Amino acid sequence: MLVVQKFGGTSVGDLERIQNVANRVSETKKAGHDVVVVVSAMSGETNKLVGYAEHFSSNPARAEMDMLLSSGERVTASLLSIALQEMGYSAVAMTGRKAGIVTDMHHTKARIEEINPKAMKDAIKEGKIVVVAGFQGVNEDGDITTLGRGGSDLSAVAIAGAIKADLCEIYTDVSGIYTTDPRIEPKARKLDKISYEEMLELASLGAKVLQNRSVELAKKLNVNLVTRTSFSNEEGTLITKEENIMEKPLVSGIALDRGQARISLIGVSDRPGVASEIFNKLAEAEVNVDMIIQNRAHAGMTNIDFTVPKGDLIDAKSVVADFLKDGDLEDDVYNENICKVSVVGVGMKSHAGVAAKAFSTMAENNININMISTSEIKVSMVIDERYAELAVRSLHEAYELDK
Amino acid sequence: MLVVQKFGGTSVGDLERIQNVANRVSETKKAGHDVVVVVSAMSGETNKLVGYAEHFSSNPARAEMDMLLSSGERVTASLLSIALQEMGYSAVAMTGRKAGIVTDMHHTKARIEEINPKAMKDAIKEGKIVVVAGFQGVNEDGDITTLGRGGSDLSAVAIAGAIKADLCEIYTDVSGIYTTDPRIEPKARKLDKISYEEMLELASLGAKVLQNRSVELAKKLNVNLVTRTSFSNEEGTLITKEENIMEKPLVSGIALDRGQARISLIGVSDRPGVASEIFNKLAEAEVNVDMIIQNRAHAGMTNIDFTVPKGDLIDAKSVVADFLKDGDLEDDVYNENICKVSVVGVGMKSHAGVAAKAFSTMAENNININMISTSEIKVSMVIDERYAELAVRSLHEAYELDK
Repeated sequence: MLVVQKFGGTSVGDLERIQNVANRVSETKKAGHDVVVVVSAMSGETNKLVGYAEHFSSNPARAEMDMLLSSGERVTASLLSIALQEMGYSAVAMTGRKAGIVTDMHHTKARIEEINPKAMKDAIKEGKIVVVAGFQGVNEDGDITTLGRGGSDLSAVAIAGAIKADLCEIYTDVSGIYTTDPRIEPKARKLDKISYEEMLELASLGAKVLQNRSVELAKKLNVNLVTRTSFSNEEGTLITKEENIMEKPLVSGIALDRGQARISLIGVSDRPGVASEIFNKLAEAEVNVDMIIQNRAHAGMTNIDFTVPKGDLIDAKSVVADFLKDGDLEDDVYNENICKVSVVGVGMKSHAGVAAKAFSTMAENNININMISTSEIKVSMVIDERYAELAVRSLHEAYELDK
Repeated sequence: MLVVQKFGGTSVGDLERIQNVANRVSETKKAGHDVVVVVSAMSGETNKLVGYAEHFSSNPARAEMDMLLSSGERVTASLLSIALQEMGYSAVAMTGRKAGIVTDMHHTKARIEEINPKAMKDAIKEGKIVVVAGFQGVNEDGDITTLGRGGSDLSAVAIAGAIKADLCEIYTDVSGIYTTDPRIEPKARKLDKISYEEMLELASLGAKVLQNRSVELAKKLNVNLVTRTSFSNEEGTLITKEENIMEKPLVSGIALDRGQARISLIGVSDRPGVASEIFNKLAEAEVNVDMIIQNRAHAGMTNIDFTVPKGDLIDAKSVVADFLKDGDLEDDVYNENICKVSVVGVGMKSHAGVAAKAFSTMAENNININMISTSEIKVSMVIDERYAELAVRSLHEAYELDK
């Protein structure tokens, strides 16, 4: 097998942990596999460098930030390669440039445009373990770029796609994807397999293990992704094509998102286009609107409720204030004490009644549902934050996820 | 003027000092000059990274070391560029690669083969301050190389040559080149100007400010080098072509080298080739032999005295031991309690009696001279270490260097 193994900041957090990573890579190699390792900066390093830059400027130039921040991953890659060589392996450390990772021109959040994997492939053919500095590439001007948050995961997935790896293992401090947050529901079970689509829903709903960009890229490149822990030998969770999952569960997991706030616009004037104007202005202000509900209030007026990430609330308020001033709405109400509970599962596509069970479970527990949104594989409900844990546990039990 | 300014590790040792460097560069720019800045890693950073590597291996691979160590200079260059931008300047940070520094294939002690200064020249033309990460280049395979000790000075001198800079200023924690070590002779004077040749002699004799490689390169590329301190506005010392120095002093300085040891080979067999065999073996063992004196002892035998750096003494002893065993010499004696005092000056070329004054000064102070070697611009004497300071002060006075 050809395996890509990616180790995040906590997995390479100090010299001892880097040695542990070397031992793990060694085991994979000894088992007869070819390995490309992708590493992050040692945990804390990137923040330290960002702190240095912020000492000089609150808005440092992005090209300089990329040159600055890309150094952390290079340090880890060099050290891991040295550790592997000392264990007797033939290993080679590569920068993003050497690994052939070409990005667009957007410094600090570049997108990978292509990978020229010749250097990696040649090294693999020579029996070498390839250790790649994650998070970075090079644009067509030859300047260093970085890929933004979760960038090393993206590096790993893109490399796995380019070299047609059988598996891309993402090592973190979490052992896999669970049916729900084990801190809320101790009966939560780790999933063996989950589809890209379900993972995307769970990730956007607060499961912090993987970012959506990485899952989307894995889906696009058809990369079998495994998320597992570097701190034990426990098996992780395979994220793969739906077709590769034989027994499709009705529901795979319950996700909880505490990061949203609800904005209620009361008495929105019914003249054509007001609602679309509001949401256009919110988009211009880069406010991420999630759920939207519109309902007729009284003659010529409607109410609009929507949710935004708590971090976008200040920007959203300032957009809404303009419309209030202009008399296009009567009042606005903000509620940060909400949460979104979601039921996710590809099995929903072919089974009726999944949403109904979610609603009845809420009713049995006297939890009022504020907003509802559904997709092919998801039912999301906005409820009062104080019922968050109760809702998660009740749904987990209702769908028999502990079994 | 087009000026290259190089700042070493202590000059960029923390964020405050990097800001001071930005202020100094700003003054140069404000005075109407174009500036290319070359920076080292923050002091301590390189040692920290070397320590990390040594945690894993006592003999880490050199390509990996280059990828590891080159990161420190990149951090400083990015931060300084950010600081300059925040002050309102247009600045751009460049890696060794971007600055066009191409080296040979010798990882960890590469030699600069050529510089393609297009990116730097374009940036200068656009009015930008160019900030280059020193100490590093890239070989013809596109892999990062580093230039070894004093590498950032080499980067600066090579860049100054390539862009035909009017001046290359090397900023350190020392304010220039002195007639002798001011800790030994408080009357030591800072020199305004000194020739490349004199600087080479002084550097190889223990003046730590500049390494010979940098001075040699400056001489070859005809770069006007200035060494000065970054901690005050004090003028430094200009190192330039002899022709550029109008008043050539008889003697420019007195150098002291405590780093040598003397080896005396007694009763070396007079068969042809023994001496050359010994020095060939020493060369093979990479022992740097400095001064050599041979004198006939008695029938068929000679004595040979030579000096080596104290660090090479163990290797030298083991070479000599083989010849002792083979009966090619009668005895060996080692003396680490010696020092070498040297009188340096281009004026010697055209003036007789300079060496004679050195010898008589020693005699007046009852200092026995063990060994003597002379060149066109230098007289070196090996004496008992206990007389080191006395010899330096007496010579400094004899040649009126305090005037």
